[in-house]
Amino acid sequence: MTENEDEFLNRPAAEDSHDDIYDDEGSIRHDFLTMVGAAIADRDVLFLRQNVARLHESELGDLIEAIQPDQRLSMIRLLGADFDMTALTEVDETIRMQIVDQMPNEQIAAAIGDLDSDDAVYILEDLDDEDREEILAQLPFTERVRLRRALDYPESSAGRRMQTEFVAVPPFWTVGQTIDYMRDEEDLPESFTQIFVIDPTFKLLGAVNLDAILRTKRAVKIETIMHATNHPIPAEMDQEEAAQLFEQYDLLSAAVVDENERLVGVLTIDDVVDVIQEEAEEDLLRLGGVGDEELSDSIAETSRSRVPWLAVNLVTAFMAASVISLFEATIEEIVALAVLMPIVAGMGGNAGSQTMTVTVRALATRNLDIHNAFRVVRREAGVGLLNGLIFGVSIGVVAGFWFQDPNIGGIIATAMLINMMAAAIAGILIPLSLDRFGADPAVASAVFVTTVTDITGFFAFLGLATWWFM
Amino acid sequence: MTENEDEFLNRPAAEDSHDDIYDDEGSIRHDFLTMVGAAIADRDVLFLRQNVARLHESELGDLIEAIQPDQRLSMIRLLGADFDMTALTEVDETIRMQIVDQMPNEQIAAAIGDLDSDDAVYILEDLDDEDREEILAQLPFTERVRLRRALDYPESSAGRRMQTEFVAVPPFWTVGQTIDYMRDEEDLPESFTQIFVIDPTFKLLGAVNLDAILRTKRAVKIETIMHATNHPIPAEMDQEEAAQLFEQYDLLSAAVVDENERLVGVLTIDDVVDVIQEEAEEDLLRLGGVGDEELSDSIAETSRSRVPWLAVNLVTAFMAASVISLFEATIEEIVALAVLMPIVAGMGGNAGSQTMTVTVRALATRNLDIHNAFRVVRREAGVGLLNGLIFGVSIGVVAGFWFQDPNIGGIIATAMLINMMAAAIAGILIPLSLDRFGADPAVASAVFVTTVTDITGFFAFLGLATWWFM
Repeated sequence: MTENEDEFLNRPAAEDSHDDIYDDEGSIRHDFLTMVGAAIADRDVLFLRQNVARLHESELGDLIEAIQPDQRLSMIRLLGADFDMTALTEVDETIRMQIVDQMPNEQIAAAIGDLDSDDAVYILEDLDDEDREEILAQLPFTERVRLRRALDYPESSAGRRMQTEFVAVPPFWTVGQTIDYMRDEEDLPESFTQIFVIDPTFKLLGAVNLDAILRTKRAVKIETIMHATNHPIPAEMDQEEAAQLFEQYDLLSAAVVDENERLVGVLTIDDVVDVIQEEAEEDLLRLGGVGDEELSDSIAETSRSRVPWLAVNLVTAFMAASVISLFEATIEEIVALAVLMPIVAGMGGNAGSQTMTVTVRALATRNLDIHNAFRVVRREAGVGLLNGLIFGVSIGVVAGFWFQDPNIGGIIATAMLINMMAAAIAGILIPLSLDRFGADPAVASAVFVTTVTDITGFFAFLGLATWWFM
Repeated sequence: MTENEDEFLNRPAAEDSHDDIYDDEGSIRHDFLTMVGAAIADRDVLFLRQNVARLHESELGDLIEAIQPDQRLSMIRLLGADFDMTALTEVDETIRMQIVDQMPNEQIAAAIGDLDSDDAVYILEDLDDEDREEILAQLPFTERVRLRRALDYPESSAGRRMQTEFVAVPPFWTVGQTIDYMRDEEDLPESFTQIFVIDPTFKLLGAVNLDAILRTKRAVKIETIMHATNHPIPAEMDQEEAAQLFEQYDLLSAAVVDENERLVGVLTIDDVVDVIQEEAEEDLLRLGGVGDEELSDSIAETSRSRVPWLAVNLVTAFMAASVISLFEATIEEIVALAVLMPIVAGMGGNAGSQTMTVTVRALATRNLDIHNAFRVVRREAGVGLLNGLIFGVSIGVVAGFWFQDPNIGGIIATAMLINMMAAAIAGILIPLSLDRFGADPAVASAVFVTTVTDITGFFAFLGLATWWFM
């Protein structure tokens, strides 16, 4: 045993497990990984129980991602009932599927019984129908019904992400009765921040935050301290829309209701934070021309997800090339044009993606709407004009000296100005129009904007040169 | 009064104000804006009190952004003491500064006294020193001290974002004593989900979630139900790091401690959600070559924020142009090269930004680290090779037929393959290296990656052609 390991094992069972397993960079410590690897190889169940089973679910998830693929299932088998299945909600989809596919359905059923319903649904929804039915059949009746109901709601809906465990009381109970109920009841959710008030048909009447209960005398009736649930979330609502309500109204949890306004579950902020992250990530990846890929995808999967975007770009690249081919005679005469033309197109492309990025983000956060669209378009046109002048003049001067010809300088300066204006207009109008017609502006804007700036850039520069020199 | 307005005014004071002021697109309803505008013009204080003062702070923020700039201050003046200053934390920085600059310091001081400390700090931190001191001087002693302490912590630190109001009790109190204290105490925070346990010197001993208090009999001591606060947040910690702890451990709130581990405040999930949003937005904007700009910025401000990035791109564009100029003789001979060369460079640029986007995002979410870096680099190289073959062959065939010359087809296919490989390697190694050296990969990666793909693309294509034909 090395000195390092010795030091690690002699530490008191630290409460601050965060410092334990991560290094300064936020990666799992190398010596911890080595020890876990050795324990898996040696089938050292005791070590794993003491050092792995105690980890927080997200730490265990990071550990599963960091160890070798062939070690993952062995570790889970060795941990047996001590393995916290929630950790699987914290790993890449590809890795989760690999693990779940190889686990016997009985073991999954046993483990899923202990999970909160939202975590259970998260794991069940990716399974194929046959496995899912087999696992559900092994669960107790109430739980099976609850999970089936959540799984019946559409993918990415609030109903899918909700937790079906919650505390609900009638309005005529007093604060004292409510507290006594919570002290005696065994089967409460693992943690909660508000309780709901319902009528005998489960219709939602209101909600009470726990701090309101704690501030209030025992004799007071719940209905006098409950607040209206201003934002009950229909189970069919898209999770992104639900996340926007959480953000706007700083909610910690919200009631989820069915089409008859009956309480069916509760959506909590921790799931919403994940949704917010995913949506922001989606916009970023789409703008970069990447689909739903994960780091654990194979070469073939990754290539397949990227080819469509590259193929679209190829078509537009040939369109730009055919614009150039219109001016072959001019280029043959003045080769300087071939040297300079990528500058005009490239600068336009960059300016266009600046405007487009701002527009896509403003649309996603609902900061851009009909009230300010006109003002923002005018501003972008102004920025395009100003930056077009700045860079047109600079490039014109440099190009004029480089090729010892003020005519070339003047032509490239004018072409730059035209292309920067085109970039600004395309950069804002393309995403705005896509959004108006219900398309996701993050997906398609980049292709259209570069097509506009390439074609405008080449046409303006080579066209002006042909008109002037030929 | 139009029929529409009439309908609106006759509605019962709706609890679900969300449906009231927004249309289906999530913009503020046009007729509501018209009515507010008319009320401001008519100095109709009654209308504003009934219909504007009752809005949620975030709705009021949206309204302030949607009305004309010159109406904003008038509306706030008309609302007087009914104006909820918290709404200013929900608007663009530029708009907030415009409003605050024009409000008398006395009014700001009066309004800030009612705010939670985190909201007060949010507004105070943007003011110039003189105004801030004048406002602080008008606040009661305790509040002034609290706000000064938060303002003393660095910008973007947990100490700046924390709320200094919290409930803390000694460990030897019973659950009953704690509940009685909360029932009697007037000066509790507006809302809270956990209480803290401290010793007489304010040293943090632990925390208790409110649901734990409600589940427990009155006679039980707090110290037996408290949990260790595994993740107390040092006040100096960067807000982004704090947000990562919230995300990883699904926290709702966390204790903020000073350098002596004394409890100084509490950080709550709603502020953290804002941080998560901001950080995701920052990455997106930086990848698009845009700095910290807001929709309400002027043309000059926007231009200034975008010029640096365009200037850097200009330099690299000239570098690429000088590569082309090395081959002027070849281009003069075979003009087809000038037509085709932007395709090679452009496709490489797109493939490079796909890889770069994935890498930057994986670094930001800490999914990419030393444990899987090698595997991911190998995968990207594989994807580059595969996509290089696919697109090299397609472009080669098309170009060969277009210019009736299989040599040109073969040369462009080879150049494409080389450039796609270069794009893959640059797309992952450049952000990884920037991250290693402590730079933000989102800021600079795009420039470097396009420089590599432009130069490689032109050099490989024109170089191969020169070697083959000349």
